[in-house]
This record gives sequence, C-alpha cells and structure tokens, in this order.
Amino acid sequence: MTNAVYPGSFDPITLGHVDLATRAARLFEHVTVGIYTRSQKPGALFDPERRLSMAQDALAHIPNITVDSFSGLTVDFAREHGASVIVRGLRAVSDFEYEFKLTHMNHHLAPDIEVVCLMTSSKHSFVSSSFIREVASLGGDVSALVPGNVNLALQERFGLLAPVGD
Amino acid sequence: MTNAVYPGSFDPITLGHVDLATRAARLFEHVTVGIYTRSQKPGALFDPERRLSMAQDALAHIPNITVDSFSGLTVDFAREHGASVIVRGLRAVSDFEYEFKLTHMNHHLAPDIEVVCLMTSSKHSFVSSSFIREVASLGGDVSALVPGNVNLALQERFGLLAPVGD
Amino acid sequence: MTNAVYPGSFDPITLGHVDLATRAARLFEHVTVGIYTRSQKPGALFDPERRLSMAQDALAHIPNITVDSFSGLTVDFAREHGASVIVRGLRAVSDFEYEFKLTHMNHHLAPDIEVVCLMTSSKHSFVSSSFIREVASLGGDVSALVPGNVNLALQERFGLLAPVGD
Amino acid sequence: MTNAVYPGSFDPITLGHVDLATRAARLFEHVTVGIYTRSQKPGALFDPERRLSMAQDALAHIPNITVDSFSGLTVDFAREHGASVIVRGLRAVSDFEYEFKLTHMNHHLAPDIEVVCLMTSSKHSFVSSSFIREVASLGGDVSALVPGNVNLALQERFGLLAPVGD
Amino acid sequence: MTNAVYPGSFDPITLGHVDLATRAARLFEHVTVGIYTRSQKPGALFDPERRLSMAQDALAHIPNITVDSFSGLTVDFAREHGASVIVRGLRAVSDFEYEFKLTHMNHHLAPDIEVVCLMTSSKHSFVSSSFIREVASLGGDVSALVPGNVNLALQERFGLLAPVGD
Amino acid sequence: MTNAVYPGSFDPITLGHVDLATRAARLFEHVTVGIYTRSQKPGALFDPERRLSMAQDALAHIPNITVDSFSGLTVDFAREHGASVIVRGLRAVSDFEYEFKLTHMNHHLAPDIEVVCLMTSSKHSFVSSSFIREVASLGGDVSALVPGNVNLALQERFGLLAPVGD
Repeated sequence: MTNAVYPGSFDPITLGHVDLATRAARLFEHVTVGIYTRSQKPGALFDPERRLSMAQDALAHIPNITVDSFSGLTVDFAREHGASVIVRGLRAVSDFEYEFKLTHMNHHLAPDIEVVCLMTSSKHSFVSSSFIREVASLGGDVSALVPGNVNLALQERFGLLAPVGD
Repeated sequence: MTNAVYPGSFDPITLGHVDLATRAARLFEHVTVGIYTRSQKPGALFDPERRLSMAQDALAHIPNITVDSFSGLTVDFAREHGASVIVRGLRAVSDFEYEFKLTHMNHHLAPDIEVVCLMTSSKHSFVSSSFIREVASLGGDVSALVPGNVNLALQERFGLLAPVGD
Repeated sequence: MTNAVYPGSFDPITLGHVDLATRAARLFEHVTVGIYTRSQKPGALFDPERRLSMAQDALAHIPNITVDSFSGLTVDFAREHGASVIVRGLRAVSDFEYEFKLTHMNHHLAPDIEVVCLMTSSKHSFVSSSFIREVASLGGDVSALVPGNVNLALQERFGLLAPVGD
Repeated sequence: MTNAVYPGSFDPITLGHVDLATRAARLFEHVTVGIYTRSQKPGALFDPERRLSMAQDALAHIPNITVDSFSGLTVDFAREHGASVIVRGLRAVSDFEYEFKLTHMNHHLAPDIEVVCLMTSSKHSFVSSSFIREVASLGGDVSALVPGNVNLALQERFGLLAPVGD
Repeated sequence: MTNAVYPGSFDPITLGHVDLATRAARLFEHVTVGIYTRSQKPGALFDPERRLSMAQDALAHIPNITVDSFSGLTVDFAREHGASVIVRGLRAVSDFEYEFKLTHMNHHLAPDIEVVCLMTSSKHSFVSSSFIREVASLGGDVSALVPGNVNLALQERFGLLAPVGD
Repeated sequence: MTNAVYPGSFDPITLGHVDLATRAARLFEHVTVGIYTRSQKPGALFDPERRLSMAQDALAHIPNITVDSFSGLTVDFAREHGASVIVRGLRAVSDFEYEFKLTHMNHHLAPDIEVVCLMTSSKHSFVSSSFIREVASLGGDVSALVPGNVNLALQERFGLLAPVGD
C-alpha cells in the first residue's frame, strides 16, 4: 500500500490542481493534499484556512483524497501521513528546474521518500494560481480554469459579487 | 487594417523597446505602446506618469506609434484601441516560458486577439529595464542602452546630474 | 500591404500548421506557405511534390494562402514572393532556441525582412511532423492531429488502407 | 494493484537506468522494462537481443521486475502487460521537453494510461547511453557508470578484452 | 599573473561555493570572494558583516583566497582588486540565462574584464543559499551542505542551539 | 603556469571560435585548439586536414595558440598537451545542457582537469558551424561571420569561386 502527499500553496486551487490530484488518486492508495501555510508570499490572496476549505470542497468527490495543512518540511509532512511518495506537477521548463532542485533536496533530507512528477495536461499548462489571482483581480473571467467554489470566492473577493448571506 | 498594442512596464523604456516598437510599426497600421500602471513592483523606479512621458519622448519620431497607460487586462486595452494584435518581445528562454503562458491565458480570455512575438535583436538581448535600473543605481554607464532622455532621467534620479531647471 | 511567407518541411502538414497558417492569414495580406525541398533528412516520409499537394489540399479553403516549394535561402524565397515577413511557430523552449538563432541569421542576411513568431495553440503543442510520422508508422491513430487528406495518405503509406484507385 | 512499464532503448542499460527501475519497483506492483527494438538509430551499438539480456542480468536481483522487448507503440506495450503506468526518467531540461511532448501524445493515444516521471539521482544526471557508448569507444573508463556485465560487454566490443570463452 | 573575483550574496556560503572558490583558486593567482552588500533582498538572513566573517572562516585554509565586501558594480570591484576575471558558478539552465545577460552587461561596461563560468559539481547542483535558508528555518538538517561554522550559525539563528557564550 | 585546450569540430572555424580562442589566450599561458577528427558526422563539410589548416591560418596571429588534431578523449588530449583546463564556449541554453553533461563526464574521467566556460559574445551568439555550412551551401553571404580564408574555402567548395591556382 503506497500513500502519497501532494503539497503546494493552492492559493487558490485550480482545475489544473484538481486534475493532478485526481490522477494521483488513481495511482496511490491515499493522497493527502497539503496546504503549505508558512510562507505568506507577497501577492498572497487567501489565508490558509480559506485555501484549505476551498481545496476540501473542490476535492470532496474523490473518496481517497483528504486535505490538510502543514508548516514544516514536506518530507516530515509525508512521514506524518504515512506517505512514501510526494507528488508534484510539471507544467513547464521553469517548473522542471525548480522541481529538480527540490527533489534532490528532499532526497537528501529523506532518501526513503520518492518524488513522483506528473505532467500537467496540455489544456491546463498555462494555468497557475498566480495568473488566476492576477487575471481575476483585473476582472477577467477565470470560471473555466478554477472549481466553481473558487470562482465564487474570487468574485466575492474582487467585489464582483455580494458576499454569501448578504 | 491591423492595429496592435505593445504592452509592458517600461520602467524605463530601453533601446531594446524602441527597436521592437519601431519594427512593430512597420508591420502594423498603428501601434499603441501600453504602460501598465497597476502593479507597483518592489524595485520600481519611475512613477507611471514619468514612464509614459519618457516613452512618448523616445518614440515621438515614429508617426504611427502612440503611447497610453492602462491598469486592466491587456486584452481589454487592445480592444479599447481597436487592436487585434498584442506584440511581445522575446529575449531569452525565460521570457519564452512566461510569454507562452501569458499568450495562452490571453487566448483563453480573448480568442479573437492574436499575440505576435518578435525576437529582440542580438545587440539588445541582454538589456532589460531591471538591469538598467540596477546598473544605473550603481553609477554604471547605460547611455548606449537607453534613449537620451531616459539616460538624463536616470542620472538625475541617482544624483549624478542636477535636476532640469536647477 | 504586408505579405508573409511561412516556411517549413511540412512532412506532413499537421493541424498545428493549419492553425498557424490560418492565424497568419488573418494578420497579413497574403501568406505563402513554403515547402523546403532541399534537405532530404533521414526519416523523411513524403517526397516534396506530395508534401506540396497535401498542404495545398489542407489550406485550399483559405483564399489568401498559396503554397509553393523552395530550395534556397528563406529570405530569398520571401523576396521572390514580395514578402517582408517570415512567420514561424513556437511550441516549446527547444523551438525557441533554434528560432532565435535562425532569426538572427536571417536578420544578418536580410535586415529588411522581419521574423514574426506565433505561439502554437496549447492543444497542438505536442504535435510535430516527426511525432506524427513515428506514431503513424506504428499504427497509432493520428486522425485528430492531421488534416483528413494527410490521415488518408499516412494510412495508405503504412499499409492500413488500399491505395486510392485500387 | 498498479503495474508499470519502463520503456527505452537501453543501448546499453546504465546505473542510472538501474537506479530508476529499482525506485519504480518500490512504487508499483510490477515493473516491465521495455526494450524498444524498432528504430536502429545511427550510432546504435548492441543489437536488441544483447540489450535485452544485459538488462535482464542487471535487474535480475529485483523480484518484481521483468524485461521484455517491443516494437510498437508504448501504450500498446503497456496494455499488453496489464500496466496503467508508463515510467520515464528526467535528467535535464532537454529531457523534459521531449518527455512533455511524448506524454501528451501518449495521453492523446491512451487517456487511461498515466505517465509518471522520476528525477534521475544527481550522481547519475550526466550519464546517458549515448555518452557511455562514445566514451567507451574512446577507451574511457565507464566501470562506475554501468553494471558490471555491461562494462565487460563494452570492453569486449571495443577490443579491450578477449571475448568470453576465447 | 591573472587575478579573479568571485562575487555573490553568500547568505550564507555553502559547500557549493567553497568547492567553486577552491577550484577557481587553482586556476588563478589570487581569488577575492566578494560579498555583495547592497541589495538586502526580502528573505535575507544574515547581515553583510556576518556573511563576510562566515565566508572568511570557511575559506581560511586556502592561502590565495581573500574575502571582501562591495556595494557597487562588480566590474569596479574587480578593478579595485587588480582582477581581470570574474568567476561565476553555473548550476542550472535558469542560472545560465541570468549569467548570460549579466556577462553581456558586464562586457558592455568593461570589455577588458572576462567572465569565466565553472559548472557546479553534480553533488552540489541542488544546493543554493535560498534553499539552505528555507530548509534550515524549518528544522531540516543541512550539515552536509554547508561549512561547519555556517551550520552552527543556522542552528543558533533558528533556535536549535544556544548562542555561543550562552 | 596554466595551459588550456579548446576542443571542437571546427567544421569550419568561425569568428565566434576566433573570438573565444583569443579571449582564452589572454587567460592562460598557452591554448591548444583541438580539432576532433574521429566522428565524421552526417553533414560534415571539410576533412580534418582542411579544418586544421583553416584554423591554423585563422589563429596564426596569436602567439600563444597552437592548433592540433585528436581522435581520443578530450581529457587525454589535454594531458598530452600539459593542460589542466578545457575551454568551452556557451551560446545558448541547449549548449549549456550538453556542456553540463560533458563537464560532469570529463570530471568523472579526470577530476584534476577543470572545464572553464566562456560566454560567446552577443554578436556571435547565432553563429554556429552547422548554420554556416547550410547558409553558405545555399549561396548566402557569410563573409562577416567567418575568417577570410574560410570564406574563400566555402566559396570554392560551393562553386562560387574558381579553385586557387585554377
């Protein structure tokens, strides 16, 4: 039985992430999506709790996926969840370079944990959370690129929609 | 009749930008250079008004180029100026990756607008606004890399020259 | 009035090529697709006449496109067709590097001719003639990746179909 | 239960391949290493039978790995072996680009088969079969980069060793 | 007699830097490691004085290396130290692109000064100061990747060790 | 005293090569340009003797450069010439990747020999021997990209000039 973690910022989760998590869930017994909460980068949009709940909603239909947050090393997060695999998505050459260094650092820290890379599907290859944040902030329509609940949250956030309950 | 926009930060405009705008103006009926004013990145040097006026001065000799500023989506800026083409410059592989994602995002937002890439001439391939800002701030001579008015503005800014009218 | 050439081997023409030629034909007055016939690379599949006729069939529905073959310098081919623009497609970083060098060489040979790059649409970014040749030779279904006439030619070539008229 | 195939030319198998196959065998129930026999590239060294037997010897100590040869589409080879996963190694950016296109082509041909990429360990990142062939042909010592049986085969091939049984 | 400078942020110095400086010291008469003190980037960890003293300690055993700090142009720093060579390390493609532009800018500013690139050894190719800072801040063990004195400083900084003298 | 070798195919030597050899000769006591004669690649133009004599003519004005040919490992060629340095030029990302692997292979074979990379000057970044061969074969003017003697040899070869002495 092989368990995996799929770590990231997920600020917010996109349909590219959902596609990747879905495919990982076919390969491994259980996949824990890990919301990294420590670095609040400049340009961050949603707080960690919101990012977690959005990812949970977007992935609720897949039985062997759970979502959790973490603020330490990815390899420690993997061990805490009984996972021997870290799943990462590759969209482009610049992703590759970063992932290459990250993989070797993770291997140095935990040689028993394997990093598995899946290629993003070609229709999602231009979708990144940072692009989503920027385009949505400028009023661009990203409804075809993010889950429905994320689209609502973005519209609410950028004043295009009355807050829920209003 | 095909009109084009050539968007960017232009902080400040360089001779690489001037070369590209000049070549675009030979290809298309009219080119509107668009100064993107929204994101005030860390490391920004000139305010949007100054960036606009410097670009206007540097391109005043080309009749079918005008300069304008914008703070929304590039595809909306293009539509407002009756342009069906967005012109972008490519200097290096890292440019390519970013432009690739940007092009596909723009195509998703506005399938009727075409993104056209021109390669930066080899003599300008190492010239970027961020390099110009850094080198000029350290007292390096960038007079061969930027228009004359920009060179004066940089010298004034970094205390190497008395302000105009002083 | 700006005319363009779109040169390549087109062995065979793919739907990626058709997409690019179609977009180029919206940008320029006239586009001449140029079949380069000189280098018969190892792995070549169709002879130049066949490549020409397949491209003509696949592009016949676009009034301002013609197809021609050439065996000299691309810049000379452009001049012979009254074109001041060479159109090239970019799919990936490795394309970019080659095109970058090619563009600068062409600029060295003919400074008055501009090279314009269009990004391949994301759904065609993995489609290349060499992949098509290899997959088709192994019996893979490429019908969604090439024009109908090319698909028939591939099936005939690899013995999956009786020759026309047989 | 998830089975995988790990396809390649393996001309010859290197310690980088052995490392990757070993790691894949920890992730999946069974791994079938697939020797692609169709394209006899210029520069090929060993015939398919020899490549197969060398790989079998080098991987004999791993119980859930078998080695087989194939000459058709990789996705067909996967199906014939009841595998839903294709494993590929990534060493460098140029690998990435090729694998990216290959993955999307394979996904187009067989959407139910997943391509999983593992990063080559940093100590093997410069080891490729083509480098091994070239260095060995020039008398360079590659004994630390290939399995023992491959080293003997290379020495025999390049006249540095009497043939076995001689 | 050729002297060289080896400039960088060194926040902190890693074993990859030590390896590179050591190799540069075999090639050139004297190597001055230059700690760039001007840009205090977001994410900076140690102040310039500390970075300088850590580098001095880590390189004290190599007689023809000295360490100095600078806040101007690298080419000016080189001239002040009688150096006609700037040494830079290359780890990855993204390094290459940046170094390429930097080299051409430096050549523009000072055509008499040569930039020499050395490839980082494969076992250090994933080690960067920014990774070290992040991993150490999360409690990861980086003792095999940095000099002993840097490891102590990192442990002290992140509260894993009582300050010296405490 | 540090000697260097600068190996390559030099089919033919270009002004990019001359620039690099000239710069290497400023850095090191003596530079031996090494013409690799073993692999006669498809597309090769001049035989090894001709490549050697063209390089000798083009570099005759630099006293501390000699030209020699070799057919074995580069590290052995270096040792035979008392060189502890191998000089390589970098033009582009694809060069980088190949050089990266080559450097690590050479380091594996001969840890005492250092590989030093110099960036090609921006005005030569698009010049490669293979481009020169192709453009010259099509009648393109490459006189500004190669030494005078090479230009004559190319014209003679492609029938644009009567052979010397004819």
